[in-house]
Amino acid sequence: MNQKDDLFYMKQALLEARRAADCGEVPVGAVVVCRGVVLARAHNLTEALNDVTAHAEMQAITAAANALGAKYLTDCTLYVTVEPCVMCAGAIAWAQTGRLVFGAADEKRGYRKYAPDALHPKTEVVDGVMAEECAALVKDFFRKRR
Amino acid sequence: MNQKDDLFYMKQALLEARRAADCGEVPVGAVVVCRGVVLARAHNLTEALNDVTAHAEMQAITAAANALGAKYLTDCTLYVTVEPCVMCAGAIAWAQTGRLVFGAADEKRGYRKYAPDALHPKTEVVDGVMAEECAALVKDFFRKRR
Repeated sequence: MNQKDDLFYMKQALLEARRAADCGEVPVGAVVVCRGVVLARAHNLTEALNDVTAHAEMQAITAAANALGAKYLTDCTLYVTVEPCVMCAGAIAWAQTGRLVFGAADEKRGYRKYAPDALHPKTEVVDGVMAEECAALVKDFFRKRR
Repeated sequence: MNQKDDLFYMKQALLEARRAADCGEVPVGAVVVCRGVVLARAHNLTEALNDVTAHAEMQAITAAANALGAKYLTDCTLYVTVEPCVMCAGAIAWAQTGRLVFGAADEKRGYRKYAPDALHPKTEVVDGVMAEECAALVKDFFRKRR
């Protein structure tokens, strides 16, 4: 994957995040890509599903495994607009995800604070892709709700 | 909750774990209880669902939230036969689970190794309930598969 690809797919994840915001969900979006093919697109649905586990990443991982017919995402990249939480980092690890690319850091709830070694040791991590746009979406969402 | 209640509900979780073993799943079972009412029973379904996120705890949390019609499990106890992994600990935290009672420790994949502070600070944790029976089930499962 080159930087141009990462930007392209992060924009797709941002589209998902905007869909979440439109539905009153905390705007986080995710996309799973395998060798140039988008296997899954998902956004946070915790409010709609009344389910704290319905983060964008969890749904993207489940959907990608369905699309592949295989549990492991070793040849896949997961793009997500915000740094995954501990729960999602655990799921990313179980899926043996090949690459994780995220946008904005989450200093309060991000996995790097609570579980810096939670990911699979073979998972390549790229952070900060379109970080400002990804963070702005979340900040804007919470500002409007206040 | 007293010790007798904890034993009773852990036995229910063990029944779920045995169901998992009967289906060829790693035998982990979970039960969510709220004021003496069992809201959810679940067991590991990662093979059947081809989904690494389908741990017993994840399903129990989702099902309990459905039963309650509320996202948070502040008045609930989650019983699980094995120490939760990082992913499940994150979910238990998001659900603001009132109590977590588990059986066997998981020194390889348990949350206490990777994310000891992952749980919600208000979650009361009780470990080691029927630990030998819970661990024996898992050991027996893997011994038979070798």
